[in-house]
Amino acid sequence: MSKVVDLLFTNVRLATMVEGYGEMQDAALAVKDGRIAWLGARSDAPAASAEHDCGGMWMTPGLVDCHTHIVHAGNRSNEWEARLNGATYEDIARQGGGIMSTVRATRQADVEALLAQSLPRVAQLLSEGVTTIEIKSGYGLELAAEGCMLRAARQVAQRLPVRVATTFLGAHALPPEFAGRPEAYVDELCERMLPQLAEQGLVDAVDAFCERIGFSYAQTERLFAAARTLGLPVKLHAEQLSDQGGAELVARYGGLSADHLEHLTPEGIDAMARAGTVAVLLPGAYYFLRETVPPPIAALREAGVPMAVATDCNPGTSPMSSLLLAMNMACTLWRLTPQEALQGATTQAARALGLQSEIGTLEVGKVADLALWDIARPADLAYAMGFNPCRAVVNGGVLRPAHISAA
Amino acid sequence: MSKVVDLLFTNVRLATMVEGYGEMQDAALAVKDGRIAWLGARSDAPAASAEHDCGGMWMTPGLVDCHTHIVHAGNRSNEWEARLNGATYEDIARQGGGIMSTVRATRQADVEALLAQSLPRVAQLLSEGVTTIEIKSGYGLELAAEGCMLRAARQVAQRLPVRVATTFLGAHALPPEFAGRPEAYVDELCERMLPQLAEQGLVDAVDAFCERIGFSYAQTERLFAAARTLGLPVKLHAEQLSDQGGAELVARYGGLSADHLEHLTPEGIDAMARAGTVAVLLPGAYYFLRETVPPPIAALREAGVPMAVATDCNPGTSPMSSLLLAMNMACTLWRLTPQEALQGATTQAARALGLQSEIGTLEVGKVADLALWDIARPADLAYAMGFNPCRAVVNGGVLRPAHISAA
Ligand SMILES: [Zn+2]
Ligand SMILES: [Zn+2]
Repeated sequence: MSKVVDLLFTNVRLATMVEGYGEMQDAALAVKDGRIAWLGARSDAPAASAEHDCGGMWMTPGLVDCHTHIVHAGNRSNEWEARLNGATYEDIARQGGGIMSTVRATRQADVEALLAQSLPRVAQLLSEGVTTIEIKSGYGLELAAEGCMLRAARQVAQRLPVRVATTFLGAHALPPEFAGRPEAYVDELCERMLPQLAEQGLVDAVDAFCERIGFSYAQTERLFAAARTLGLPVKLHAEQLSDQGGAELVARYGGLSADHLEHLTPEGIDAMARAGTVAVLLPGAYYFLRETVPPPIAALREAGVPMAVATDCNPGTSPMSSLLLAMNMACTLWRLTPQEALQGATTQAARALGLQSEIGTLEVGKVADLALWDIARPADLAYAMGFNPCRAVVNGGVLRPAHISAA
Repeated sequence: MSKVVDLLFTNVRLATMVEGYGEMQDAALAVKDGRIAWLGARSDAPAASAEHDCGGMWMTPGLVDCHTHIVHAGNRSNEWEARLNGATYEDIARQGGGIMSTVRATRQADVEALLAQSLPRVAQLLSEGVTTIEIKSGYGLELAAEGCMLRAARQVAQRLPVRVATTFLGAHALPPEFAGRPEAYVDELCERMLPQLAEQGLVDAVDAFCERIGFSYAQTERLFAAARTLGLPVKLHAEQLSDQGGAELVARYGGLSADHLEHLTPEGIDAMARAGTVAVLLPGAYYFLRETVPPPIAALREAGVPMAVATDCNPGTSPMSSLLLAMNMACTLWRLTPQEALQGATTQAARALGLQSEIGTLEVGKVADLALWDIARPADLAYAMGFNPCRAVVNGGVLRPAHISAA
């Protein structure tokens, strides 16, 4: 390796996100072979083949949205409007609404159709400095359609400048074909769908919706055991609407994250702290559903549980395509500090995907996934609502303009 | 006038916003001399010098943000962060925080500096299909600085493709020079500042902050009387934190709008209904301040008071630059219907600015201020959070791409 770096970002203020914001004024950052090769005081910068003067802007690690259902067909604005016009949940269920309407639309779509509908949402996220997203399946609920969703998720990373981590969420809801036979569907998940999709290299992690209206503790554990056999990490939609002991379960399996957590217990917090399982906070769903019980933020903070923040982008409970807005909601609704919110969208979100050695901070050796912001201070990122101060993004050392379209 | 129109938008779905959404499928809309010359079934479209195939997208009137403080210097993310880190309001006041920190920053800025800081926020709004915004003064609180703010507001319309309506809000807070002498400041407003700024053509309307911590009913009425003498319409920040009778006052003066209204009384509603005064709803401030008393939406609806929705873009209580997000909050937090939210950002917002004969609906003779959206149905505009489906905008018949930057 020669001493000359490929690209030097200079005249920049860094929020390295190593220990708090990790602020460095009047700094520079060097990229070589797609990774961060050096960072420090501007006056000490190494020789570079090319320089980019950042005009005093702030640079952070590229943002990471670690919980999305962003690949799906159709939307549910019609149901939402019907409810606001006075329809009851029963009216809507009678008209075929709810998650099954998204399942029907998604099953009818092929990979290209899924991409056509999903890429604009992804492009919106990426325009705000996001460089990595997680994408879940879970609207197919049968082998072929789940495979379509996961292939579309992989394709997202081919079509747009983003790293994608996929998650198999076949245990999202019980498909109509298995009505009244949940155990048989869990058999199908464990014995056929998950092994085959994993075999095709489509699954980076395994998730479930552990809830009264989803899958039980025991059913979830069967799935986790199958994941363990395949060497796949697990995570869980846990304690969103009620306490099911899901956080303890996922912690017991050394899980990456437990997500939602509005009804998390002290025992769940302890288990997560011991296992290093990340608490993924999803304020968009709490806001959109007008929930009133917040997750136990102060207790999580005190226990030292890492907290991530994500959009939960999905058509039913969080039609949100802005991670900055999720950060604002985490602060406004749940009193995260702006620093915690930014950690939650960088360092801790990387940890929630098991990618903390590759991304999530500005450190020598990590991938050069970076975002440049026209802001006065890092707190601005969570403070503004519906304002995008991102001015450029770097993916693996390659500079692009912030605003991109899916077309 | 020849029969050939200048520009024909074809293969488009219209939400005219005349009586509800006013939906027209498979339609066309013709522009001549910057105004809407014709609209109807695509098959009946007139001959045109140029055609724009909209690919089946939806077209609405350009959005109108009828309540902003978008011209200002500095921001207050530092205070916001301090509060989230545990500082009290007293701590922050002791450190010179609150509205006076924005007044200090704004007084130090000239017109160019104000524009440099404000245009990015305006550009963000405009990227979401906004074609008209209201901009208030009120961070100068002295003749020269209020003049600077209003000149910057006028300049916004020269620098970016947007119509601007200005509002003189000298009665926003008591400046330190008049501490303990509010009546003397109201004298200054009525006898010197307002007449001189109006004389310079900088004032389209007059506003005040009528509140215990702002100006009293009697002080507000003195200002309104001065506005009437000058032939200027009035509006009011009314009943946000407490009932001051402001809505009745502004209605008595035939005011354009009463804004905020969380503590509005039945008497206020009656007075507004009789006077045709628009209720301007500002859910961003309610959300950001974590207020718990919503405006009386159902009673306003029942009384037939027109309801507009706006961002209230300001650094202290609503750092929001997305009118679509304000629409979502109005529905999510206050149960407006998506149709009411869209009317609130078009027709009723135009009415709140006294511009209802020029803009706010798709009707022959109105200015061709239009927005094109890649959506399935009009409800999508309020439904999505942090997603911009705007694909093109038309200002006075001139087509532009949706995304614009302030640079
Ligand atoms: Zn989810
Ligand atoms: Zn205001």
